[in-house]
Amino acid sequence: MSALTYKLIKKDSKNKARRGEITTPHGVIQTPVFMPVGTAAAVKAMRPEQVEELGAEIILSNTYHLYLRPGHEIVREAGGLHKFMNWNKPILTDSGGFQVFSLGDLRKITEEGVEFRSFIDGSKHMLTPEKSIEIQNALGSDIIMAFDECAPYPAGREYVKNSLERTTRWLKRCKEAHKDTERQALFGIMQGGMYPDLRKQSAEEITQFDLPGYAIGGLSVGEPKEEMCEILDYIDEWLPENKPRYLMGVGTPDYLFEGVERGVDMFDCVLPTRIARNGTAMTSSGVVNIKNAKYERDFTPLDHECDCYTCRNYSRAYLRHMFKSNEIMSSMLLSEHNLHFLVNTMKNMRKAIEEDRFSEYKREFYEKYGY
Amino acid sequence: MSALTYKLIKKDSKNKARRGEITTPHGVIQTPVFMPVGTAAAVKAMRPEQVEELGAEIILSNTYHLYLRPGHEIVREAGGLHKFMNWNKPILTDSGGFQVFSLGDLRKITEEGVEFRSFIDGSKHMLTPEKSIEIQNALGSDIIMAFDECAPYPAGREYVKNSLERTTRWLKRCKEAHKDTERQALFGIMQGGMYPDLRKQSAEEITQFDLPGYAIGGLSVGEPKEEMCEILDYIDEWLPENKPRYLMGVGTPDYLFEGVERGVDMFDCVLPTRIARNGTAMTSSGVVNIKNAKYERDFTPLDHECDCYTCRNYSRAYLRHMFKSNEIMSSMLLSEHNLHFLVNTMKNMRKAIEEDRFSEYKREFYEKYGY
Repeated sequence: MSALTYKLIKKDSKNKARRGEITTPHGVIQTPVFMPVGTAAAVKAMRPEQVEELGAEIILSNTYHLYLRPGHEIVREAGGLHKFMNWNKPILTDSGGFQVFSLGDLRKITEEGVEFRSFIDGSKHMLTPEKSIEIQNALGSDIIMAFDECAPYPAGREYVKNSLERTTRWLKRCKEAHKDTERQALFGIMQGGMYPDLRKQSAEEITQFDLPGYAIGGLSVGEPKEEMCEILDYIDEWLPENKPRYLMGVGTPDYLFEGVERGVDMFDCVLPTRIARNGTAMTSSGVVNIKNAKYERDFTPLDHECDCYTCRNYSRAYLRHMFKSNEIMSSMLLSEHNLHFLVNTMKNMRKAIEEDRFSEYKREFYEKYGY
Repeated sequence: MSALTYKLIKKDSKNKARRGEITTPHGVIQTPVFMPVGTAAAVKAMRPEQVEELGAEIILSNTYHLYLRPGHEIVREAGGLHKFMNWNKPILTDSGGFQVFSLGDLRKITEEGVEFRSFIDGSKHMLTPEKSIEIQNALGSDIIMAFDECAPYPAGREYVKNSLERTTRWLKRCKEAHKDTERQALFGIMQGGMYPDLRKQSAEEITQFDLPGYAIGGLSVGEPKEEMCEILDYIDEWLPENKPRYLMGVGTPDYLFEGVERGVDMFDCVLPTRIARNGTAMTSSGVVNIKNAKYERDFTPLDHECDCYTCRNYSRAYLRHMFKSNEIMSSMLLSEHNLHFLVNTMKNMRKAIEEDRFSEYKREFYEKYGY
């Protein structure tokens, strides 16, 4: 019995958008889904009950950060990540690969894995496929990700081809290292940069492993949206229909729509909470920068169409005052709203797919949002 | 009809501790009471519902801060401070006096009032008794404080005598400026430094105004605890029994006990939330510095005797991890705990007074806390 099953509920007849359901040991997830990010075992500035109340059904946490601090053995001793952080719904952990590759000069890639220095104390560490799985096993997340090599953008064809083939070899090692497949579902990651034929090669290679789900890595790494969409255009063809598809690190509303329209089921991004801490909100009528002087005496809610805690109880004038006063409350209230906004937008997408009007909903949303 | 009534419920037979009840336009307050501080229209890192859930019945907000930002006229336009900040229980505002006197070289005191420069933009402002009342009227708090002159510690007799006499003259101006006594209750403030005879003079002068409550100002300003207690020893004698007594700016557990034992009814302090943001917790067995390495693998709650949200759901290891990771969650969880601790300690004091065993409870608490 696999830790994860995917059920396809309905496909939109006019595009590739699909409505599904993922079942994990910690509960069921309606897809397409947006996963709030809780990097260091906390969704920043949010109590877990609040994350749940706003409708999130799964969160993501970062292996790289938890490995370095507090250390995966401490999380294991605490009874696993769910218990440690007081979140009893599904958790997905990434592999740490993306973070260590992003370290630039501070890391060295070999066939064995990646050597890097800690951002906390400069100490030397080695992350390998086996080590990443060991850490994620200790964390006890419901979905664990294979340790892959994410090529930068732009990157030459040879570099990308080598990366994707190494990613396949590492996936083999990950699968062999991961024993308890009834407790945690391992997802493989497709690479291949912006080269459709290499993407196809990667998809063919990773799907050979018959895993419970597949991710699309190496997108949203700096390329123009059109280039990303060109790759996504193929995923419905290249990835099996009966497995969930996860587009990693994507979180602006338009990217979510473009992904869902092409058959993506899962997304994650730090964007909603990060811009919240910077005083920026996503609303049904577009982006609001709460610092703006025009909100000084604006006693209306942040988003007139929103029923989140923040919009039910506070005015733009109050939110601006909180931000200007450097109050933690500012991050708390804007994070709540932004997460609610994306989670609720996904909910609306699911409903639109059920009613076979995803394209219409997308058009309406874009018009109001100002895309 | 006054905005505030005080009912004395019970006195402890072995000391001056008293159990009472204050009724205000926004609800009833059981005394003795600890008031969490929400300086800039927010209790730092806490949603108002959480402040209410942990048992707080009244909070304090700072006139000086709200006058400078966002401005009292904006709060008035928002419908008053309660609505602006989403807190529907009683609010007490201070007069701004203590803050402007603390500015040192940045302020100039005259009989008219205090001229000072804004900490935000350096602009010049003048706070007078009339202005302080005007601001507090705009804020709409249930209890407003007279604009007083708080002498520093130490201060010579002449200086202190002049301050307290000016405080009386300013109280007269405050009372004349405050019209809507059915909506907001004005408290006078006793000064007189560490000189018992001057304290007595101040008490006699301010109680002439027959106000709904009286505060003891100018204590906990740097003097040894014994000196503070020497003054507090007299307050039950000098201040009327049928009015609440408020000891300003006091928040360490021992000061609360010493105050209550001498007949004080109300306290406020930024301490619980400020030390929380610094990683320090007050627990039934004393102060805990969560940064300490010994908590790295401590999977027990912060305080074994506590039933607050934080202690019900998180371990010391998690709290330490949150602090070390600079997560806002650290401030959120420790603020919750520390406020709950003081509010709950006051609840226990009230129960002890009802059962005529306040001194015993004080002794037990001190022993466990490590005083």
